[in-house]
Order: sequence, then structure tokens, then C-alpha cells
Amino acid sequence: MTFFTFARPIIMSLQIIDSAAHMQQQAFASRAENKRIGFVPTMGYLHDGHVSLMKLLRPRCDILITSIFVNPIQFGPKEDFAQYPRDLQRDAKLCESAGVDIVFYPKVEDMYPKNFHTHVEVEYLTETLCGPWRPGHFRGVATVVCKLFNIVQPHLAAFGQKDAQQVVVIERMAQDLNLPVEIVVGPTRREPDGLAMSSRNVYLSPAERQQATALYHSLKLAERMIHDGERDSAKIISAMKSLILREVTSPVIEYVEIVDRATLHSVQTIAGEIIIALAVRIGRTRLIDNFMLTF
Amino acid sequence: MTFFTFARPIIMSLQIIDSAAHMQQQAFASRAENKRIGFVPTMGYLHDGHVSLMKLLRPRCDILITSIFVNPIQFGPKEDFAQYPRDLQRDAKLCESAGVDIVFYPKVEDMYPKNFHTHVEVEYLTETLCGPWRPGHFRGVATVVCKLFNIVQPHLAAFGQKDAQQVVVIERMAQDLNLPVEIVVGPTRREPDGLAMSSRNVYLSPAERQQATALYHSLKLAERMIHDGERDSAKIISAMKSLILREVTSPVIEYVEIVDRATLHSVQTIAGEIIIALAVRIGRTRLIDNFMLTF
Repeated sequence: MTFFTFARPIIMSLQIIDSAAHMQQQAFASRAENKRIGFVPTMGYLHDGHVSLMKLLRPRCDILITSIFVNPIQFGPKEDFAQYPRDLQRDAKLCESAGVDIVFYPKVEDMYPKNFHTHVEVEYLTETLCGPWRPGHFRGVATVVCKLFNIVQPHLAAFGQKDAQQVVVIERMAQDLNLPVEIVVGPTRREPDGLAMSSRNVYLSPAERQQATALYHSLKLAERMIHDGERDSAKIISAMKSLILREVTSPVIEYVEIVDRATLHSVQTIAGEIIIALAVRIGRTRLIDNFMLTF
Repeated sequence: MTFFTFARPIIMSLQIIDSAAHMQQQAFASRAENKRIGFVPTMGYLHDGHVSLMKLLRPRCDILITSIFVNPIQFGPKEDFAQYPRDLQRDAKLCESAGVDIVFYPKVEDMYPKNFHTHVEVEYLTETLCGPWRPGHFRGVATVVCKLFNIVQPHLAAFGQKDAQQVVVIERMAQDLNLPVEIVVGPTRREPDGLAMSSRNVYLSPAERQQATALYHSLKLAERMIHDGERDSAKIISAMKSLILREVTSPVIEYVEIVDRATLHSVQTIAGEIIIALAVRIGRTRLIDNFMLTF
């Protein structure tokens, strides 16, 4: 059980805890003092999207905890676990300035010791969208979030709408497993040209970065078509794909789907609460984005 | 949210709660008062084995909670969910006399509402013993126990050694998912002739009931052989099977195995902490039993 604080005055009040046992002990001590715990789980390399979630919870809790953990079990064998960007110093400063009290920064061996054999799986909601493209991904997400909730014991936990399917899966898991935590969803943060913020945007070359706005443009197009009366999902999806193929050099369109917000399964006709979601690979970078709309 | 207390004076102080939300609220209220919660999850039709677990926890906690829930998702489609014996009145009296404060008695629709999609799975440890014979069983057990722990928020939870594999699976799940609960294991309670107590013993005809002691006899034989120096698992297993075939009319021996206590995988040579475990069907009744030994 180790914890270290940075020497530099700017991050003096931020506590960094790297042991799950110690973090859980602290969480129970806070709960015993009747303090409300807010929690923002992240994989680090923080951007304004993460910071906005911290600011969303800050006024609603007494202790604000962020976890920084690049979770190996949510990456496929050919995915970017090893390359995923990491910068604890920079992240700690951002956390400090966003009012975070504790950064939980566990080691992989602490989270997944030898003889680790348990997984949490959310079915049905993971059959669509990113599910088929990233086998095991949501199982890894559900498992680590369940573990983190048990370690951090939050009253509130915030997730970004950018990962729309993740939000629905975690809401479902929390409800199904009776986890006593309120899930708060923060809106997607975007660059000035519309690109959704993501730690993975750093992978994009300057040319790819410019073309990446096609995802946002296609969502705006869909929104406009629906606003103008179109209700046929197939027509909207087809127009979105054409736009992406026009604006991006050799994109790999994994999916463009319009799904029901509750079931995450495709709707033929636009009605109720829907999510327009897409995943596109530009060069070696996989990007996702979505709009949530209600009719 | 409903809860009812029985009118009869003998069970006056026992509270029965049938809503998960209300149970969880009560659990947090008790924790806020710094009370230690002890928990004995059961499927009801209580016997002396369950009562011994309650008595084991009673001196170690402030609030003792028992759940009575015949968990549909741990039964296979051809198993005895519908026939499983139920008697709340009788169970409530036994709980009362064992010092239980609250019986949590949820409805199936409350535990598994429409749109329930989440499961907890413990791998590797469920590949052996009952695992292959009861596909999905331990997934159902792990899921319901995870849910119950989140609802009841226990500091301590007790399970019987009779369900040896269940004990190891739940210990693993609690550790892997960072569930803040101490797992306490109570010894197997037996009838005077050695038969392990089980709610399912009620299924046995008088003739079957008499022959059912063969399971205990075979475990005692194994113990004697080991005591006399035998270390070859195969020889011991063979002698156990012969005894069962001699003492029982047309038994279906699902397995007789000698496994390592930590891995639940077979050992060829007796050493360390081992479990000698067996499952035998006598007529329509499936019985399990085990001895845990250390060398």
C-alpha cells in the first residue's frame, strides 16, 4: 500500500493512491463520515471531455475521485493497448485544476492478479454497434467498471455521451447488479470544427485530422434530414455513408447505425429516443461518434 | 416497497422485506449507524446446516440478514426449479430462533426484471466437478450472490462447506470484483448416519434415503485409505466408486474427483489442501458431498 503526492505546489492537494485496498479503505472512511463520493473513471490522457465530467460532479459530491487506468482486458489482441497514450504528470495537473481530490492509479497486477477468473458480461445491448467489431471489449469495460465501483464506492459516477453504447451498457449493469450508484452522463465535447474529443485523436496525421470532421458532418447531415421530415433510417444512413466516402480518403466504415436508445438495436423508422452512431477507421485510427435525438 | 411481520408472537421481532430497493436502503441505514451486517444467503427450506451458519455469524455482527430466494437462473431447464421445496412460515420460525433480524424474501420479477441482461461468470474454477454437469449453474450462482451482496451490503457472509465448489467460486468472485465482504465457511452438517444435510434430501424415498449414506461411506473410505498411506488419487476414486455401486441400486455417478482446494482441478497424487468431492444421482435426486483434507 503506497501513495505519493507530487512535490510541486500546483498539485499539492491532490492525493494519488495506487493500491486498490487502500483506495477502498479511504472510500469506506469517507462514507463513514457521511461524505458523498463522486467518481470519474478514465483511461488517462485526459481532455476537455473528461474535465467536463469532473466539473459536472464537483458541486454534487464531497470527495471527487478520478481513476486513471488503461484497462488491458477491454482491448483486443490487435488493438492499441501498448500504444495508448499515457501522461500521469499532465493528467494530475488537469485533475487538480478540475477539483479532483483523489486520483486512483492502480497497477495492472493489482487489478488483475494471477488467478483472476471473473468477468461481468452484459448481453443483448452489446450485440450491435461496436460489439461485433470489438469482441470482448464491453466485457472488459463492464468488469473493470464493476471492480472500480466496488473499490471507490461512489454515490455518483460520470461517463461521456461520446461512448454512447458504453453508457447504456454501464447503466444496465449497475441496475442489473443492484450497484448503489447514480450514473451521470455528460455531453460530448467537441473541437471547434466539430470533431469529438478523444484521447485517440492524437494518433491522427494532420491530413487525417482534417478529414476526421466527416464523422461530425455526417451526423449533422442526418440531423438536418430528420429535421426536414425524413424518417427512413436506410435513406439517412446511405446519405451519411456517401458523405464520409466523399470527404475521407479510403475510410473503413465499420458501421453507421440508427438504434433505439433503450435497446441499442436498429430502428427502420425514426421514432422515440434514438442514437445515430458510427465507427470509422481513418488510417490506423478508429473513431466513433454519435448524436442522441428524441421525437 | 412492502414489508410484513407475522402476527404470531414467536416471530414478532423478525422483519421480512420483499423489496430489493427497501432492503438496500435498510442496509445503508445500518451501515450509517456503524453496524456490522452478517448475511446468510439461502434458497429456503432451511435445515440445520443453514441454522449453523446463522449461529456462526450471530456473535460477529449487529444485524443478521438471511435471504430466501429460489434463484431461477442457477437451475438448468431440466432441473428442479419448479419442484424445489418452499415453506416461508417454517423458515421464518427457524430464522427467528437462530437470531436472524431480517429475512430478505424478494420476488423473481424484482431480482430479474424484463430487460435484465447482466451476468457474472467465474471461469476455470467452474470447468470441473459440478460445472460440466450443470451448464450455467455457477454463472447463475455468481450473478445472484453478486446482486445479493450489493443489496444487503454485508461485512460478513456465510456459506456451507457442503457446496465446496460454490464456496471457492464465491471467494474468487468476491476477490476478483473487489467486493468488500469476508466470506465465512461453515462445516457440513450431517444426519446421525452421516448423510449431508440438504433441502433436496426430502426428495428421497425411504429406500433411497437409506442407500444415500453410501456417499458418506465412500468419503470415509477415502479418508481411511489416505490415513493408511495411499496417495494415488485413481486408486482411491476407484475404491469409492466400487463402494457406491455396491451400496446403491443403479446410481448415476456423475463424478468422484480429488481436486486441489485452490484450483479445483484434479490432482494425481494426494498433497496439500485437497477436496474429495462427488455427485451421485439416486433415483431422481442429485446429491453432492465432499471432504476437505490437508497434508
